Amino acid sequence: MKTVHVRLGQRSYDILIAPHLLQRAAEILKEHAVQKRIFLIANKNVFRLHGKPLVDTLAANGFDVTEIFIPDGEQFKTLHTLETIYTYLIAQRADRLSTIAALGGGVTGDIAGFVAATFLRGISYVQIPTTLLAQVDSSVGGKTGVNHPNGKNMIGVFHQPSLVCIDTGTLSTLPDREYRSGLYEVLKYGLIYDREFFEYLETHIREVRNRAPEVLERVIGRCCEIKAEITSLDERERDLRRILNFGHTYGHALEVVSGFQGITHGEAVAYGMIAATQLSHDLGYLAEDDCRRVLSLIGKVGDLPPVEHASIEDLIEAMDRDKKRLEDRKFFVLLRQIGKTDVRGDVDDRRVREAWKKMVLLPQA
Amino acid sequence: MKTVHVRLGQRSYDILIAPHLLQRAAEILKEHAVQKRIFLIANKNVFRLHGKPLVDTLAANGFDVTEIFIPDGEQFKTLHTLETIYTYLIAQRADRLSTIAALGGGVTGDIAGFVAATFLRGISYVQIPTTLLAQVDSSVGGKTGVNHPNGKNMIGVFHQPSLVCIDTGTLSTLPDREYRSGLYEVLKYGLIYDREFFEYLETHIREVRNRAPEVLERVIGRCCEIKAEITSLDERERDLRRILNFGHTYGHALEVVSGFQGITHGEAVAYGMIAATQLSHDLGYLAEDDCRRVLSLIGKVGDLPPVEHASIEDLIEAMDRDKKRLEDRKFFVLLRQIGKTDVRGDVDDRRVREAWKKMVLLPQA
Repeated sequence: MKTVHVRLGQRSYDILIAPHLLQRAAEILKEHAVQKRIFLIANKNVFRLHGKPLVDTLAANGFDVTEIFIPDGEQFKTLHTLETIYTYLIAQRADRLSTIAALGGGVTGDIAGFVAATFLRGISYVQIPTTLLAQVDSSVGGKTGVNHPNGKNMIGVFHQPSLVCIDTGTLSTLPDREYRSGLYEVLKYGLIYDREFFEYLETHIREVRNRAPEVLERVIGRCCEIKAEITSLDERERDLRRILNFGHTYGHALEVVSGFQGITHGEAVAYGMIAATQLSHDLGYLAEDDCRRVLSLIGKVGDLPPVEHASIEDLIEAMDRDKKRLEDRKFFVLLRQIGKTDVRGDVDDRRVREAWKKMVLLPQA
Repeated sequence: MKTVHVRLGQRSYDILIAPHLLQRAAEILKEHAVQKRIFLIANKNVFRLHGKPLVDTLAANGFDVTEIFIPDGEQFKTLHTLETIYTYLIAQRADRLSTIAALGGGVTGDIAGFVAATFLRGISYVQIPTTLLAQVDSSVGGKTGVNHPNGKNMIGVFHQPSLVCIDTGTLSTLPDREYRSGLYEVLKYGLIYDREFFEYLETHIREVRNRAPEVLERVIGRCCEIKAEITSLDERERDLRRILNFGHTYGHALEVVSGFQGITHGEAVAYGMIAATQLSHDLGYLAEDDCRRVLSLIGKVGDLPPVEHASIEDLIEAMDRDKKRLEDRKFFVLLRQIGKTDVRGDVDDRRVREAWKKMVLLPQA
C-alpha cells in the first residue's frame, strides 16, 4: 500500500493507494478514527459494482452505514441534488459526528464533499474514488461544489476530506473511454511538474493503457504526490495551484459550449492541453521538439470526439465568463518546457484563436 | 469610533462601531483594502432607509457598486434565494476580486455570507448590520447559511467577513419589537460571560431601551468584544463557542414549532433563556436570587408574544432534530451563576419539560 500524506496543518490527511483496498475498509476507517455513523453517497451503477461488498464489510465491523443514491451524470451536479441529500440527511437525523463517504467519480465526490462542507456547517467526509479521474484529481485537494446552469463549478467551497481511499482494482470495471479521460489528467502532472514522470509515461504508455496493476499504483501514487505537494503549498488556489488548470481554460470553455454533452471532462482537457501546448509554442515559450513530444503522447492515449460544433468565438465568450477569470483577464497556464509552466494573464485573443484553429487541423484532434 | 479586533490568524478582521459610520464608508473600505467591485445585498426596506446614501458615497469615491435585492424575511433564507443571487452574480460577471457587502439584518448577513463563502469557492465580504441582533450577534463570528424546510440553519459554512461596519445610527429606524428582540441577545452576553456587564445593563436598562447613543456604542462594543473573544478561542464551535447558544436549545425548537411565524428569533431566545434559567435553578446550578434577577431583567425588556401553540412534546421532538445535537444527546447551556455557564448533554427530558411548564406560568411569559 502506498500512502501519500497531504500536509495542511490541522486539515492534513492521508491518501491510501492499493489494489483490493476496499476489502480492508473497516480496518482502515477505524485506524483513521472515522466515527461509526456513515452516509455513503453513490450512484446506483457504482454501488452495484463496488458498494454492496463495502457496505457489508463495514456493517460486519460495527459501522452503521446508510446509503444515499444520487442520479448518475454531471447534469445532476446541481443545487437541486444537494437539496434532496440535505432532506434525506435531516430525515435520517444525521448529526455532527456523522461522516459522509463519497463512493464514485468526480461528480459524486464534488457533490458529497459540498454536502459535507455545508451540512450543519461542516462534517467530515471520506473520498473513495472509483474512476481514474477522481483518483488522480478531484478526490484530492478539497475542492467541492456543484454547477450552475450558466457555469461549471461556480458554487463550491474548499473542504478537505479526512481520508482518501483509492482502490486501484475499481478501475478494472471502468469503461475504456472514461479510463482514457482520466489518463489525460495523468499526463498533465508530468507536463506541468515532472519531466521524469512524463518520460516514464512515454515509455510505459502501453502498460498504462492496459491498466497493468504494478504500473497503476505507481502512476496514481505519483499523481497524488504531485497534487498533494501543490495543494499543501497553496490550498485555496491563490497562486501555484493554478498550474493544475493547465488545459482547463480552453477545456472548461469547450465543456460549457458543448452543454456538457458528448465530451468528457478529460477529453475537453485533452483538447485544452493540445491547444495550450500549441499556444505555448506559438508564443515562443515551448521548443518545437517538446511540443511534438507532448502532442504525440496525448495522441497515443486514443481518439478524441469531434469538436466542430464549438466555434472559437463561442469558446472565448465562455472563457470570459469562466471562474478562473480575475478582473478582466483570462489566465492561461503555458509550458516553458515539459515539466515547467508559466501562468499568463496577458495572452492576446488573436493568439488564443490561432492556437485553437491550428489544433483543429492536427491529426490527433 | 470603537474598534474590536477579531483574532483568527490569517482570517482576522476588525469590527468598527460608531454613529454615522456609513457616511465614512468609502474611506473605511479603502483603509481596509476592499476592492472596487462591490455587490451590495439588501432587501428593499433596508435599502430605502440606508442603502441609497451609502451607494452614492461609495460611487463618488471610485467604487463600482451593484445592488442585489432580496425579499424581506426569514422565510426567504432558502436555497432558492441563493440560486437567484448566484444567477445574478454570474450575469454581472462577478469575479474572485469582487466583494459582497451585506446591508441589513441577520437574514441578509447569513445569506450574503453564504453566497460569499460559496461563489467561486469563496470571495470576500463585508458585513454592514443594521439591526441590533445582527450588530451584536450574527454579523460577527463567520457563521453563514440558510434554512432547510425541516430545520433552521441546517445548511451553512464558517466564512469570516473581512470587515464589520456597525453604524449605531441605523438603529434609530428599527421597529421597537425588532430592537427589543436584539436586546435579548445583548442580555445573553452578560448572562453567559460577564456579570459586571449584566449589572451595567440592570442599572441602565431604561437608557438601553431608549437607544441612548452613548450607551449604545458601549453596549454593542462590549457584546462584540465578548463574541470576538469567544470566536477567536473556538472558531468552529467545537467547545467554548457553544455557550453562545444559551437559550437556543429551547429557542430554536420554539421557532421551528412556530413555523418561524409570529415570533422573532430574539423573542424565541428570550423564552429559551427563561426556560434555561429555570432549568439551571431546578437542577440546583443557579441560586434563587440570581435566577430572580435574570428573569426580572428579561421581563424589563418588554412583553413577549404568547406561545400556547407550542406544546413541550413538539418542542422536544424539534430539539431532537436540532443541529446542536451530537449523537443522541441534546445539549443545554446552563447558568451556574450570572456570568458563568456549564454545558450539559445529560439533562433528563422530564426536567426539560418541567422547566418549560413552570416558565409558561411565570408572569413575564
